[in-house]
Amino acid sequence: MLIVQKYGGTSVGTLERIKNVAAKVKARSQEGHQMVVVLSAMSGVTDGLIKLAKEISRKPDPREMDVLMATGEQQSVALFCMAAKDIGLPAGSLLGFQAAILTDRMFGKARITDVETARIQEYLRRGKVVVVAGFQGLDWDSGDVTTLGRGGSDTTAVALAAALKADVCEIYTDVEGVFTADPNLVPNARKLEAVSYEEMLEMASLGAKVLDIRSVEFATKFGVKIHVRSTFSDREGTMVVPEDQITERLMISGVAHNKNEARLTIKGVPDTPGIASKIFTPISAAGIVVDVIIQNTSAEGKTDLTFTVPKTDYDQAKRILKRTAKEIGAAEVLGDTRIAKVSVIGIGMRNHAGVATKMFAALASENINIKTINTSEIKISCVIDERYTELAVRVLHEAFGLGQEKPPVAEDVV
Amino acid sequence: MLIVQKYGGTSVGTLERIKNVAAKVKARSQEGHQMVVVLSAMSGVTDGLIKLAKEISRKPDPREMDVLMATGEQQSVALFCMAAKDIGLPAGSLLGFQAAILTDRMFGKARITDVETARIQEYLRRGKVVVVAGFQGLDWDSGDVTTLGRGGSDTTAVALAAALKADVCEIYTDVEGVFTADPNLVPNARKLEAVSYEEMLEMASLGAKVLDIRSVEFATKFGVKIHVRSTFSDREGTMVVPEDQITERLMISGVAHNKNEARLTIKGVPDTPGIASKIFTPISAAGIVVDVIIQNTSAEGKTDLTFTVPKTDYDQAKRILKRTAKEIGAAEVLGDTRIAKVSVIGIGMRNHAGVATKMFAALASENINIKTINTSEIKISCVIDERYTELAVRVLHEAFGLGQEKPPVAEDVV
Repeated sequence: MLIVQKYGGTSVGTLERIKNVAAKVKARSQEGHQMVVVLSAMSGVTDGLIKLAKEISRKPDPREMDVLMATGEQQSVALFCMAAKDIGLPAGSLLGFQAAILTDRMFGKARITDVETARIQEYLRRGKVVVVAGFQGLDWDSGDVTTLGRGGSDTTAVALAAALKADVCEIYTDVEGVFTADPNLVPNARKLEAVSYEEMLEMASLGAKVLDIRSVEFATKFGVKIHVRSTFSDREGTMVVPEDQITERLMISGVAHNKNEARLTIKGVPDTPGIASKIFTPISAAGIVVDVIIQNTSAEGKTDLTFTVPKTDYDQAKRILKRTAKEIGAAEVLGDTRIAKVSVIGIGMRNHAGVATKMFAALASENINIKTINTSEIKISCVIDERYTELAVRVLHEAFGLGQEKPPVAEDVV
Repeated sequence: MLIVQKYGGTSVGTLERIKNVAAKVKARSQEGHQMVVVLSAMSGVTDGLIKLAKEISRKPDPREMDVLMATGEQQSVALFCMAAKDIGLPAGSLLGFQAAILTDRMFGKARITDVETARIQEYLRRGKVVVVAGFQGLDWDSGDVTTLGRGGSDTTAVALAAALKADVCEIYTDVEGVFTADPNLVPNARKLEAVSYEEMLEMASLGAKVLDIRSVEFATKFGVKIHVRSTFSDREGTMVVPEDQITERLMISGVAHNKNEARLTIKGVPDTPGIASKIFTPISAAGIVVDVIIQNTSAEGKTDLTFTVPKTDYDQAKRILKRTAKEIGAAEVLGDTRIAKVSVIGIGMRNHAGVATKMFAALASENINIKTINTSEIKISCVIDERYTELAVRVLHEAFGLGQEKPPVAEDVV
């Protein structure tokens, strides 16, 4: 088999752990597999570099920021290969520019456009374990170093697995797999054997921190089988695969929550054509990702618009929105950072109308007020007061029977 | 003018100092010059990385060592450019592979073979200050990252100055220039206005820590004018130039000392043709640089060979030499790490036979025993007991009148 493995920052967080991972890779390689290993920076290193940059500049230049940040992964791959060679594992490191991870030029959040695998293939032919620095790439036109943003090493691994047509992409992390809910909040949360790309995508975008969302998009596009599992145990984790490979179709696969968003409302907006574009264009131009958008039916030619943005972008988005409000003659701008989004996700939901009802009833049973509702084919999300996040997750997990040995499958409740 | 500047680790040792250097570069650039700035790693960073490598591996893989080490300069150029842009100086960083500093594949002590200046030229045309990571390069064939070894950033700067045909290469350091002796040992040591390449080469190879020896070789080959000066003052330093540009030809330009070498002797060597090659080939193959070699006339078909190596390579060289001794049937291997070399250097020496006599007399006047003597056209070196280094330097500095306002010029003493 050709296996791509990715180890996160915690997995390579100390020199001792790097040695352990090297031993793990060696054992696997000795089963006769070809191996490509993608590493993150040692935990804490990336944050240390960000701190350094912020100390020297209030607004660090994005191009140079990527040059700085790329050193984290560069160090971990070099150290790993040293440890590997010491135990007789022939390993060779490749940086973003060497592995030819080609990206666009969006510093800090670059997208992989292509992977030229020639050098990796050559290393594999020569019997080497190829150790690729995650998170970093190269813009071919300018020759500039780029980074893919937080969680970018997942994307590196999946992109490599796709380009190399690997048999599996194993994402090693500090959790055992994908759970029906965050086990820190819900003691009887169960590890899922398998989830579909779509479900994983919803879970990732809804705050489940197991996999970076872009890596799931990549996997979906190229049909890369992902195995999410723990660095610190040998147990099987969770397979993330195409929907048709899921044998047990649960009605609901999991309950996700996200406290990282904030809500903005612009009130008394003149209800004229093109007004939504006027509001959102400057926000997108600032690189801020808008999630839920809700517009109520208007009254007396005026309407209210509500949307959510990442909490880290809240201040900037609010400033922009206030400027827009003045320009278009809106009444006022309101904001709320103390919100949370709880969601239920499951491909089984498609065939079953009762899921929403069950969800609202469960929240109501604990007197949790729903501020907004948002649905897709395989998920329902409610925004609630941040204070009730944990309670909401637990009551939903219980209501959908997710803690049971045999949770209800889709067919049971059609 | 096109100016190449190089700032050493102490000059960029803190974020505050990086900002100061950025301000210095800005001031110079505003005089209307095109500027290329080469930076070392922040002081301490390189040592920290070496420590990390030695913690994870007793004998870190050389290729991966260079990948690790290169991160030091990568961080300093990124931080510098952030600081530069904050004060309105348009600066762009280039790593070894981007600046196309091409080298051979001798990891840890690679030699620059070529510099493709296209990208640097393009940056200069666009009005940018080009900030190049010193010490690192790229082996074109393998695509591997290489480093040039200690002091490598000097070489980067001079190689760039040569390739770009720069008007001057300014090496900024923590001393004011080249002195007649180490001012820490000799209080009345004088700063030299100018020294020839040859003198600088001898001084560098004899332990004056101002310039890396390979950078002087490069400068000699391509006629690059070097200006060695202090980051922390605006005073002129010392010009390192072709001999014909030196106006004042001192008999002796300086007294150098070196405590970093150790001596090895192999005794009772069968005196047959090719025996020296048998002894030195395995030592060179290990990348160990042998300095002074002395072979006495043989007696009864046996001879003794003595040579010096860097102290850091002493243990390895001794191991190799013992193995060779067994193979060729030599009697024994002796070693001494407590030696020092003191030297007097000067292009004026060529015309004057009395320099050696004066030197030996000065050492004798302090009862300092000379263990070996070694001469070149423009220097005389004596190996002595390490304990007398400081005393020897002071007495030689005095004997050749180097502390005087007007030291003796070559013609005075012919």
